Amino acid sequence: MNIKRPDLLVVGSVAVDWIITPKAEREESVGGSATFFAMAASYFTSVRLVGVVGHDFPKQSLSDFDDAGIDRGGLEIDGEGLTFRWKGRYHENMNDRTTLETHLNVFEKFQPRLPDGYEASEYLFLANIQPSLQYEVFEKMVSPRLVGMDTMNLWIDIARDDLVKVLSKVDVLTINEEEARQLSGEHNLVKAARGIMKLGVKHLVIKRGEYGALLVDHEGNFFVAPALPLEEVVDPTGAGDSFAGGFMGYLARRGVSPNGASLRTAMIYGSVMASFCVEGFSYDRLKGLSVAAIQERFHTFAKLTDFSHANLLD
Amino acid sequence: MNIKRPDLLVVGSVAVDWIITPKAEREESVGGSATFFAMAASYFTSVRLVGVVGHDFPKQSLSDFDDAGIDRGGLEIDGEGLTFRWKGRYHENMNDRTTLETHLNVFEKFQPRLPDGYEASEYLFLANIQPSLQYEVFEKMVSPRLVGMDTMNLWIDIARDDLVKVLSKVDVLTINEEEARQLSGEHNLVKAARGIMKLGVKHLVIKRGEYGALLVDHEGNFFVAPALPLEEVVDPTGAGDSFAGGFMGYLARRGVSPNGASLRTAMIYGSVMASFCVEGFSYDRLKGLSVAAIQERFHTFAKLTDFSHANLLD
Repeated sequence: MNIKRPDLLVVGSVAVDWIITPKAEREESVGGSATFFAMAASYFTSVRLVGVVGHDFPKQSLSDFDDAGIDRGGLEIDGEGLTFRWKGRYHENMNDRTTLETHLNVFEKFQPRLPDGYEASEYLFLANIQPSLQYEVFEKMVSPRLVGMDTMNLWIDIARDDLVKVLSKVDVLTINEEEARQLSGEHNLVKAARGIMKLGVKHLVIKRGEYGALLVDHEGNFFVAPALPLEEVVDPTGAGDSFAGGFMGYLARRGVSPNGASLRTAMIYGSVMASFCVEGFSYDRLKGLSVAAIQERFHTFAKLTDFSHANLLD
Repeated sequence: MNIKRPDLLVVGSVAVDWIITPKAEREESVGGSATFFAMAASYFTSVRLVGVVGHDFPKQSLSDFDDAGIDRGGLEIDGEGLTFRWKGRYHENMNDRTTLETHLNVFEKFQPRLPDGYEASEYLFLANIQPSLQYEVFEKMVSPRLVGMDTMNLWIDIARDDLVKVLSKVDVLTINEEEARQLSGEHNLVKAARGIMKLGVKHLVIKRGEYGALLVDHEGNFFVAPALPLEEVVDPTGAGDSFAGGFMGYLARRGVSPNGASLRTAMIYGSVMASFCVEGFSYDRLKGLSVAAIQERFHTFAKLTDFSHANLLD
């Protein structure tokens, strides 16, 4: 492809996970929010990855990033330490999970460093890291056209003020249902959404796992994206980050300011990438996809929600 | 309205509930599967109701049925007994609930009796009652064009064989997610659906509460209907039965054999009626609706899932 696509910068974690599901297990499963995001977004636009790994990080994954056209000039390799490692076990429902071990390793002292030129990236996604670091990166940017961010329950608990400071600056917040309730203090999801919008979020995406995702745009309009009913979920790890990668990637590729229509289509591309992600461990299924396969799945989603608008009085 | 609509017969429970929610309480809340179904379906076609109540059943509700044009010739009033009564408390999430009291009363010995002519009804819905009674009613019918049914976890537990016998005869089974898992023995919903289809169900509707509903049609095609994100859920009781009423009511009104397209539209009318139901206690919100209000909400649902089919390569 010779057309220069807009640059989409992602800052987040790159990890090696040990995943146990009721049916299978993978001991060295490359993961992390920035990994899934970058692999998913790479089909849509030019991706720049900022993160840190240790000397144990698989060389194969570096070459997978290269094959995907991901610019990893911002991926620091710390020869002195080990990569962030997480070990977890999924329950029978493939939704709830128990953390068995977390070793932050080199990620503990992660200071995002942007190589020359990265600060001019037109699109930015602040994947789930400490809010104060997200803010630092945001401050370094020249004039991004669109900024998205994710977060997690831990930061809502221990760094709420820092978190609110970042999210008042960004265009899109992606968050899961439980986090939305925790952040807003409201159980009802509509009230939770309105509460979060009041904190300064322009557009809000609430991720609902196997039930899909909900968008509330700047004008308060709701949009519901389904998840694809899948016969086999191999590993749900990274679904939310893959969603964000497809979502932001599509918006960057379109190169327009997000509006009701483009945000909706982005929600579907996000759902498409999440559906691929969970079909395999790590980013197995996000590797080497064809544009035709992505487009075909997009049409599967379209078929999934399509109905004719028959009038009751007909 | 002077046009004679097809007759839709519903057989099920008519009850007086005592509902406690985190915010409010109603001690004499008329409910029951056939009540919600009939009220919802009454906007679409001619409804015939078969059930039993006791001498304590509120006269006001009989007159509400009459106002809705529901033929209650099959609603037996047992002067010797009390109406089926259920008392329950909803949890903070307005989804889980705890049963505090169940008094079957006259419903315990319910024997559905069809007044003359009812057996010729073109459409039949077997709401949640004992499967052997559902089968008896089914057997009495002359040649219904479409038969739907609902059931519950209790019957899957204690009357599985009877249940399977009925569902192999019907066209549409409506069931909730947990029941689908229980009936099929599969946790994954796609596998659960395929397992249930193998029992002889033609079209399957899986109800997912605040997440909407899923249709698997005879050809194995999936359709996902959203639930309306509501700022205030007053009382979820009857949502599933109201859904079934809108769903079957629409199909009856159309008068066609259900196919992929009409089933999908029916799913949305079902979702519309469920969304009204939960906005009030009992059938408060299903009473005195205008066709325009139903149609307006249908369009709200259409807007909720509408997206433009942009091509990734554009």
